[in-house]
Amino acid sequence: MGYMKLFGIALAASFAVDLLYLFVFRRRKRVTSGEKAQKGHVIHKVLFFPDAQVSCPRQSQPGGCKMRRCKFTHDTTSLSQLKQYLCSAKKTLDLCVYTISCLDLARTVVDLHHKGVIVRVLTDKEQMEQTGSQVWYFRSEGIQVRHDNTPYFMHHKFAIVDNSLLINGSFNWTRQAITGNSENLLVTNSRRIVRPYIGEFQRLWDTYEPGLLKKRREESEKFLKDLKASETSNGV
Amino acid sequence: MGYMKLFGIALAASFAVDLLYLFVFRRRKRVTSGEKAQKGHVIHKVLFFPDAQVSCPRQSQPGGCKMRRCKFTHDTTSLSQLKQYLCSAKKTLDLCVYTISCLDLARTVVDLHHKGVIVRVLTDKEQMEQTGSQVWYFRSEGIQVRHDNTPYFMHHKFAIVDNSLLINGSFNWTRQAITGNSENLLVTNSRRIVRPYIGEFQRLWDTYEPGLLKKRREESEKFLKDLKASETSNGV
Repeated sequence: MGYMKLFGIALAASFAVDLLYLFVFRRRKRVTSGEKAQKGHVIHKVLFFPDAQVSCPRQSQPGGCKMRRCKFTHDTTSLSQLKQYLCSAKKTLDLCVYTISCLDLARTVVDLHHKGVIVRVLTDKEQMEQTGSQVWYFRSEGIQVRHDNTPYFMHHKFAIVDNSLLINGSFNWTRQAITGNSENLLVTNSRRIVRPYIGEFQRLWDTYEPGLLKKRREESEKFLKDLKASETSNGV
Repeated sequence: MGYMKLFGIALAASFAVDLLYLFVFRRRKRVTSGEKAQKGHVIHKVLFFPDAQVSCPRQSQPGGCKMRRCKFTHDTTSLSQLKQYLCSAKKTLDLCVYTISCLDLARTVVDLHHKGVIVRVLTDKEQMEQTGSQVWYFRSEGIQVRHDNTPYFMHHKFAIVDNSLLINGSFNWTRQAITGNSENLLVTNSRRIVRPYIGEFQRLWDTYEPGLLKKRREESEKFLKDLKASETSNGV
């Protein structure tokens, strides 16, 4: 019976070591590795443009396209995939794009806004004022839009869906970028990639707050006025 | 002794199961997971522009900057990090950029070419002909350059280092993009991301082969000539 006990203890000890490895050692590894800490599956999808055929803009509407002889394609294209990723938004959509003139994409964004997704758009001042820009459409539908106030370009072209999915590349949100240009978009939910873009969006969003700009101008004007008054009273 | 044998067998069996788990089960997991299949460590680095200060162009030269009162910064900037990633190239550098007019970055590329790195540059035809484009410099140094022949933009802005590291984003390789614009670059060695870009570069490189273009034109001209001759002989 002494040997049977020894045998039992050895088995139990070996089992304990296995469990220790599985739940302690592996857990620690999971925490230290950024990529593995990702909950769910990792998305790394690359989309290239131009699309060989033009996607049907009615395809993504409820019930799909009902046209009998529709001249547009209903197959999967880079544009249709981009729209699918955008439409996966449940809570927020942060859009930071140099230019947006594609009505189909603008409608997708507006539809999300109407569904209750909190949409924020950050764009370039000069591009915003160009003919064809959809910024007027966003504003008329009640979407918050901010723009830079520099002589340089706000040249980013990225979108963040639900603070967890990044869509980024060379792609401007124009019709020419979809059907003519050579363009690319990377779609990823890797936290190590998405997190810096969330930070950059918030930084620019805060920087270009219209109220803040007005406040700063008023402060500067008051400071200069006080300085002038002080100089006059001192007889400078 | 029978029990001791049993004890020994139990221990050996338990040890064998552990080894089986470690080398078979975990290996299979590693092969099925794309991200884990990556050899070495995963790089996911995001760079934002504009740089607050202008990087010293002499900093990356052998021996660094020797100027006593250099007006440029020698701290780490997004530009200095971009140059470091480019200079990590040992064998190949594939550059697919809409426009390149920054002399500092062009010199970095030319230096790599002189060190024996095989450099290929793919760019946009219209941008290539603009004042300030560094394409003339690349060609004069013997670097292979190809361009699109479409009325649209070859609008990509990516680089692939040694077929394993991708540098991609909104960033055009211009001075304004470094010191003025809001821009981003993602640097990654994730195979699932890099692989499609390698494919796209090769596809465009083959498409815009000058010899192929000449051959196609000659074939078309010959076909039309033969057709005309055939029509004339048939009395059409």
